[in-house]
Amino acid sequence: MKATGIVVEYNPFHNGHLHHAREAKRKSGADVVIAVMSGQFLQRGEPAFVDKWARTEMALAGGIDLVIELPYVYATAQATDFAKGAMALLDAIGCESFCFGSEQGEIEPFLRSYQLLKEHSVEYEEKIREAVQTGISYPQALNRAYASLRGKNEEFADLTQPNNILGFHYIEAAKKSGSTMKPLTIQRIGANYHDPVTQGVSIASATGIRKVLFEGGSVDGLSPYMPPSSLKALQQCRTFGSWQQFYPLLRYAILREQPENIRQFAEVTEGIENLLYEAAKKAPTFDDFIGLIKSKRYTRTRLQRMLTHIYTGFTWEQLRSYQAPAYLRLLGMSGAGRNYLRLQKKNIGLPVISRAADLTDTMGMLDVHASTMYLLGLGTEQLKKEYTTPPFYFGDRDSK
Amino acid sequence: MKATGIVVEYNPFHNGHLHHAREAKRKSGADVVIAVMSGQFLQRGEPAFVDKWARTEMALAGGIDLVIELPYVYATAQATDFAKGAMALLDAIGCESFCFGSEQGEIEPFLRSYQLLKEHSVEYEEKIREAVQTGISYPQALNRAYASLRGKNEEFADLTQPNNILGFHYIEAAKKSGSTMKPLTIQRIGANYHDPVTQGVSIASATGIRKVLFEGGSVDGLSPYMPPSSLKALQQCRTFGSWQQFYPLLRYAILREQPENIRQFAEVTEGIENLLYEAAKKAPTFDDFIGLIKSKRYTRTRLQRMLTHIYTGFTWEQLRSYQAPAYLRLLGMSGAGRNYLRLQKKNIGLPVISRAADLTDTMGMLDVHASTMYLLGLGTEQLKKEYTTPPFYFGDRDSK
Repeated sequence: MKATGIVVEYNPFHNGHLHHAREAKRKSGADVVIAVMSGQFLQRGEPAFVDKWARTEMALAGGIDLVIELPYVYATAQATDFAKGAMALLDAIGCESFCFGSEQGEIEPFLRSYQLLKEHSVEYEEKIREAVQTGISYPQALNRAYASLRGKNEEFADLTQPNNILGFHYIEAAKKSGSTMKPLTIQRIGANYHDPVTQGVSIASATGIRKVLFEGGSVDGLSPYMPPSSLKALQQCRTFGSWQQFYPLLRYAILREQPENIRQFAEVTEGIENLLYEAAKKAPTFDDFIGLIKSKRYTRTRLQRMLTHIYTGFTWEQLRSYQAPAYLRLLGMSGAGRNYLRLQKKNIGLPVISRAADLTDTMGMLDVHASTMYLLGLGTEQLKKEYTTPPFYFGDRDSK
Repeated sequence: MKATGIVVEYNPFHNGHLHHAREAKRKSGADVVIAVMSGQFLQRGEPAFVDKWARTEMALAGGIDLVIELPYVYATAQATDFAKGAMALLDAIGCESFCFGSEQGEIEPFLRSYQLLKEHSVEYEEKIREAVQTGISYPQALNRAYASLRGKNEEFADLTQPNNILGFHYIEAAKKSGSTMKPLTIQRIGANYHDPVTQGVSIASATGIRKVLFEGGSVDGLSPYMPPSSLKALQQCRTFGSWQQFYPLLRYAILREQPENIRQFAEVTEGIENLLYEAAKKAPTFDDFIGLIKSKRYTRTRLQRMLTHIYTGFTWEQLRSYQAPAYLRLLGMSGAGRNYLRLQKKNIGLPVISRAADLTDTMGMLDVHASTMYLLGLGTEQLKKEYTTPPFYFGDRDSK
């Protein structure tokens, strides 16, 4: 059996994701599609809109055969480490290829860009360093350095587009780790990343969908943009995760510390601790808070990642203690996914963990901890859900 | 001008406190009554029912001439340190006497008890150690050791009564520090510590009064038990402080830590961290939580003190770094109180601090921090109240 891998958040799962899963399977010729999915906190440094179990259910109903959790430490990291963790898991589970959605839509420009930067790595690093010193954000500095190497040559990938950037990092991570997985990409169709929901278009961005629901819109109204299974899963949610909802706890966490101790949390850079503390004292809402701390130097995403780590109590010391993923946390499977696990057992390079109780290493225990923090922020009383929820088995789809 | 000192919490100020203030003045023959008052967290390890500024206002209207804040580090300590801090402040501000309410009602039994324990200190300590080893709580162990020394001799104070215990500690603290303040006591009248409000009795316990309001009773209905000024202050409060109210934040603070790190907080003894963590995971309310952690070994008060320190993020390391009070934080004054400060300036042994911004040592900054934590728990947006509230001046009372 052949598998292709994709890296997802499904926040929440919509028609664009459905398209991605189908195209990945078609393009790779694989028998199963394996998704490495972020858990309760996401790469943009946000609590997930709905919990990972609901998102797993949507994924399986939408054509995914195996859902593997991307550990917190990678899921909340900047693109390089995010990609490193995701690629390591897809490689370990035996994928022959991986397939990402991109604005570019073709794989060759990415491969050329990778080659270009590899061959000019010293120059590239130097240009990044120079750009950072002008006070711009790190992603902007990468852009500037890349642009000056690429010039106007359109044979290279356009790395100013968010999905192109992630795709590039997947390729880089896979190549650097020596993985033999074949990189594939499909053209993203329909909405751009942050586009609002538009009438008459069957693909909306996840951001647009969340916005509708945060603003009190009905789940039913989203039926043009999501498969029925996603609508059903959303209908069962009483609250949706957001920084707005989590802010009272985050604010307390910040104000409880002596400012200098805030520095102990992962991604918090020296000098910002007093700003965070004073802003938390002033701001009654998360939007006010982020408005007070945003600057040219720190992107919102960067700040939100710090805040995620402050919220969960995750420190630099913990961050630095991690090496490589040591397990595959199975969140759900289709019938075909189950067969794959059985048949490929010998080719799977890491233990497949089905129960939270079996996560005994620090990385896995951190996933469980982050999950508890998430559930607490949501205001649910099911704080033991991590231990009481077995992997979701979705046999129906294959029983035709 | 002569001053007498009292140690209070006024949680909230009621007719019993009015009686205490008047009797202290009468019995001591002093010109002014100075109250050392706990700030936002109290000796039983609880958030104050109403904030320290409202309680200061009530105190001044009720006959107190100066209100000095007992620093957090003493206000939330067990009786010995609580008394030590309070006596040091009363002594520093030049009181010639101090006067506490007691079930005993006469001072001689206390003095005899103090003498008895001083003369048998080695034996006493030994008996306490033995009693603790049987697994009972520390206060119970003190009781048992004292009872065996005292026998049935009624010339000694009955140290099973809560106000007698505190009174004894005041005397002990004053004597040990070499203070020349004269100890006085008055008989507590009316309600016992935890008694509910009873119709037709003009003195109710503060616990009883809080209970009425927590259960949604009207402030007006408390008019038989409180001076009009207290009623007015309570009417201005939108929420009342309680562990019930603060529990979501406390729970988050506990669950955010790896259990072994909970041990870093002051008063948390080794071995209880997992119990706290597991109980927080299970218990949706504070009552459920305390029900899960209470035991023969740990009194509710002892546990609540730990929880206060976890809530505010106050560590053993911080606790151990304190020596003696270094300032007198003035929360409010009457006209007579102001005169006293002016006339006695030379005899006041510590700087009198009127503004939070002048609290530059760690003990004072901790008071401000604890106050922020309290205001956050209350859900108020006035997180800078500590800096924007000058000492309350109550001139009217004296302008007759």
